[in-house]
Amino acid sequence: MTGPEPGSIGELGEFGLIDKVTEGLPAHSHVIVGPGDDAAVVAVPHGSVVICTDVLVEGRHFRRDWSTPIDIGRRAAAASLADIVAMGARPTAVVVAFAGPADLPAAWAVACTAGLRAELDDLDVALVGGDVTSADSVMITVTAIGDLQGRAPVLRSGAQSGDRIAIAGRHGWAAAGLALLSRGFRSPKKLVDAHRFPMPPYAAGPLAAQSGATAMIDISDGLIADARHIARASDVLLLIDSALIEVPDELASAASAYNMDPREWMLTGGDDHALLATFAKKAKIPSMFTVIGEVQAKGAAGPGVIVDGHFVSGAGGHEHFRG
Amino acid sequence: MTGPEPGSIGELGEFGLIDKVTEGLPAHSHVIVGPGDDAAVVAVPHGSVVICTDVLVEGRHFRRDWSTPIDIGRRAAAASLADIVAMGARPTAVVVAFAGPADLPAAWAVACTAGLRAELDDLDVALVGGDVTSADSVMITVTAIGDLQGRAPVLRSGAQSGDRIAIAGRHGWAAAGLALLSRGFRSPKKLVDAHRFPMPPYAAGPLAAQSGATAMIDISDGLIADARHIARASDVLLLIDSALIEVPDELASAASAYNMDPREWMLTGGDDHALLATFAKKAKIPSMFTVIGEVQAKGAAGPGVIVDGHFVSGAGGHEHFRG
Repeated sequence: MTGPEPGSIGELGEFGLIDKVTEGLPAHSHVIVGPGDDAAVVAVPHGSVVICTDVLVEGRHFRRDWSTPIDIGRRAAAASLADIVAMGARPTAVVVAFAGPADLPAAWAVACTAGLRAELDDLDVALVGGDVTSADSVMITVTAIGDLQGRAPVLRSGAQSGDRIAIAGRHGWAAAGLALLSRGFRSPKKLVDAHRFPMPPYAAGPLAAQSGATAMIDISDGLIADARHIARASDVLLLIDSALIEVPDELASAASAYNMDPREWMLTGGDDHALLATFAKKAKIPSMFTVIGEVQAKGAAGPGVIVDGHFVSGAGGHEHFRG
Repeated sequence: MTGPEPGSIGELGEFGLIDKVTEGLPAHSHVIVGPGDDAAVVAVPHGSVVICTDVLVEGRHFRRDWSTPIDIGRRAAAASLADIVAMGARPTAVVVAFAGPADLPAAWAVACTAGLRAELDDLDVALVGGDVTSADSVMITVTAIGDLQGRAPVLRSGAQSGDRIAIAGRHGWAAAGLALLSRGFRSPKKLVDAHRFPMPPYAAGPLAAQSGATAMIDISDGLIADARHIARASDVLLLIDSALIEVPDELASAASAYNMDPREWMLTGGDDHALLATFAKKAKIPSMFTVIGEVQAKGAAGPGVIVDGHFVSGAGGHEHFRG
């Protein structure tokens, strides 16, 4: 029998790893009890808490030989934080479950947590607890909580006929980056980086809620696929006019270089965590959003998404387990 | 290329699986937004929320050929709920991240969730959201939140010299069950069942808090190992008198049949999720607890656990990654 790999999380042990990844955590005024007890306690001044959980799995959501641990940590945090802001809430704290093989370098786990913590620090979100355990592959589950600050949550089900549809944040960037990478290109760097980790428009969520957004969703599967979630939950049609989608220069030039349609990326690419929202006709839509269409009552075909006059039945987004 | 396994979660797909495992969820008055949106919203009437996360990994915490999916679901829920009550809080809601291989029978995932839901239903705890994804092996992360109902949280760090030490709930039962199973025995059923899933004394947590418990911990690693967490956090000595530990008939008779010491199981066995607490000398200790010792100021050897006059430095409990 040999001992654990030098420098591995197996050598460090559970409690040693916890000490390392929680070292120097910043103080947060809303944290009543931080890591180290059976559970954490977080102040909730407005009577309700928003909660969601997201898991990233090695080999499924990321590969350790393709992504840096910092990128993976950022992505893990972003996936949950984006869901919180999509309710119109401000994220306040997360707990993290980390599983990995005993021979995983401790430096990898520490860097992954550093990426996660960097994403949290940008938003004053506290890391208040977690669990670490051994497993055959790396798996990171981030559960985030948030505060609606007295507002009602913005659901997927509130879109009304006549509302305008608007989107905030990058979309199609991660898909473009992946398309470039899979063809062997390493540039433009901005697009390739967008595939490494998202930059969700966090501030847009609470702003949309303040402006009376009637429905909102975090785009993780693609604009069309996630628009369909709003359409079905609200029992309406979402009419998107692709001419209204502003194509950023970065996407336009990459697409023309490779003879592709940038709007394809922007309509179907996931993983950027843009925010799609609907607003009543008279609402003042925050400047982070671009209006891309409007809501109509459903017709004979039922609720769904219409892009440039065509009812889109499949296409865009993906579902886990299935192809 | 062949299609997905008939009856597998791969055939069912992500959204199909979510529909199945959330079917017929009971209504809870404290749930403002349940599953199906970007995040859930739970009422928090008392100004703070308690939160913790626990992960169970196939091959590490359970084996699919040794445990039923119902047992595994119960265990996954119990691990998190016990941490919440160990703070003196009432659990209110959970979110669950479920990862499993695409060829996992959908019936297994549904039964696992049924076990989890049964454990929640017993306590009026709501399943408010989750995430499902594919992975090489099954991994279940349960994040629970709870309500202190206006009380201060009971930390590990509050034990004071002169306090009495008391324990509620079964301890040593899971270890005894495992010892029997590993010797090829299938009875007594009560002990074998205790290894399959715990029966934490959930009500004891809030009761202890109401009675002014000064410190409390959920025993997941073993009485001695977890008592040491209180000792170190409170910077005191915990003196345990093993003669005060009431040995249940079930453990006594199994131990005598196999020529073992039942107190060994009760002092070092984990996974039962008993609650260990300390109370000021004059406190009225709830009847669910048994007094097993007292707290003293630390001596030259520093904080720690003394059993029957001996300072116990190692022994009892286990640490992940390490042996």
